[in-house]
Amino acid sequence: MSAGLTLNQEPSAAHGALIGVGLGPGDPELVTIKAARLIGAAKVIAYFAKAGRSGHARAIAAPYLPAECEEIPLLYPVTTEIPVADPAYNGALTPFYEESAKRLAQVLETGRDIALLCEGDPMLYGSFMHMFTRLATRFRVEICAGVSGMSGCFAAARQPMTWGDDTLTVMPATLDEESLVTRLNAADAAVIMKLGGNFPKLRRALTRAGLTERAIYVERGTMAGEKILRFTEKTDDAAPYFSMVLAPGQGRRP
Amino acid sequence: MSAGLTLNQEPSAAHGALIGVGLGPGDPELVTIKAARLIGAAKVIAYFAKAGRSGHARAIAAPYLPAECEEIPLLYPVTTEIPVADPAYNGALTPFYEESAKRLAQVLETGRDIALLCEGDPMLYGSFMHMFTRLATRFRVEICAGVSGMSGCFAAARQPMTWGDDTLTVMPATLDEESLVTRLNAADAAVIMKLGGNFPKLRRALTRAGLTERAIYVERGTMAGEKILRFTEKTDDAAPYFSMVLAPGQGRRP
Repeated sequence: MSAGLTLNQEPSAAHGALIGVGLGPGDPELVTIKAARLIGAAKVIAYFAKAGRSGHARAIAAPYLPAECEEIPLLYPVTTEIPVADPAYNGALTPFYEESAKRLAQVLETGRDIALLCEGDPMLYGSFMHMFTRLATRFRVEICAGVSGMSGCFAAARQPMTWGDDTLTVMPATLDEESLVTRLNAADAAVIMKLGGNFPKLRRALTRAGLTERAIYVERGTMAGEKILRFTEKTDDAAPYFSMVLAPGQGRRP
Repeated sequence: MSAGLTLNQEPSAAHGALIGVGLGPGDPELVTIKAARLIGAAKVIAYFAKAGRSGHARAIAAPYLPAECEEIPLLYPVTTEIPVADPAYNGALTPFYEESAKRLAQVLETGRDIALLCEGDPMLYGSFMHMFTRLATRFRVEICAGVSGMSGCFAAARQPMTWGDDTLTVMPATLDEESLVTRLNAADAAVIMKLGGNFPKLRRALTRAGLTERAIYVERGTMAGEKILRFTEKTDDAAPYFSMVLAPGQGRRP
């Protein structure tokens, strides 16, 4: 039944498969049994990372990697230095994703599979998605779900998020202040991602939406150096890009 | 830092700990390494299930259970027979959750830990949350994040969900039609859960929101009997309560 939904158009069986492996929120023990098996069997792995770093995904997968495998690091030319609304952002990333897809295709054409390591859930704001759309018409693509970054943060912060009829809205702090306020006002429970330099704007939006008392700030959830604070106790504006703010729902509780 | 957020008020070290173990969307291989370890070491497990069944959570955990452990089934007096908006629903569930918490407390007081098995992510619409709020003031509670049911469905349906600045809204189909339409209109990407008898209402709401062409229907995602259909191909109204509809986002794609 799933076949009707795939983008594949008769991918050649002689080609290798691209396997998007979700790795969870950061704690290597939150990798799934399936992901550990796929990584352990990999002959070739690939991962996105900031230039000069080996990246979170590679670090989470490290305990499960085989003794020898080929590694394809895909190094972002830019991450948070250019605002996403700036045309220069897409201008820098489009050729990068094109080139990355080409590098992966060259390996897949030789018949070798590639395990593409993905932090969190590959299908939520994941760089994997940019490879999927470019390669799934020509190659077999498999996807292994992972624990999302936000699910890791719910557990780390011990916050039940949605009760009964609650609606959960997940939004990036890259939105403008008015959009954030509108979405926060409409949500029963909210998760705000991609904080970084957007933090002062997010603080204003949370204040206008009356959510500062209920909100929780989570930095490095499930990882070494984890920091969890009531939002009202988060007095400075320094926040890594991958930190999150949670506003738990308050719905029906039998 | 996390200590400031816990509900615990000096839980006795002589008591056992309640461990909420997220088990993922259904495929036992999507259990995390950590969950498998916690289940394998359990002396006592507990799980919610429909009366007369052993339940999904118990089934997902089965491959990882130790040869011998005590089992505490917590059997719902009612599941979908009473609409959630009916006061009789809370009327039936409140004493059930109270009684369940008491049963768990009696074991925890003897110093034994309990692994409470939870489908999906324990903190998203999970019955575990009702035990957490009742027991976390008296006992140590640990939470192991799991792959959410929706993350399992994103992967199974091969649907990249959120791109760039997309907002994702997760809503239960138990909401009334107007509320569904309002939330669907405001969302970039949407997940609608808790389908069951709400399916005809959801179909009307998706039609009014102009989303039927983009929506995907997922039944038993990641499990045996998985069914994935374009919404337009889902012509009948029969849908299990735990099936989902996905409406993928269409945001920025460098």
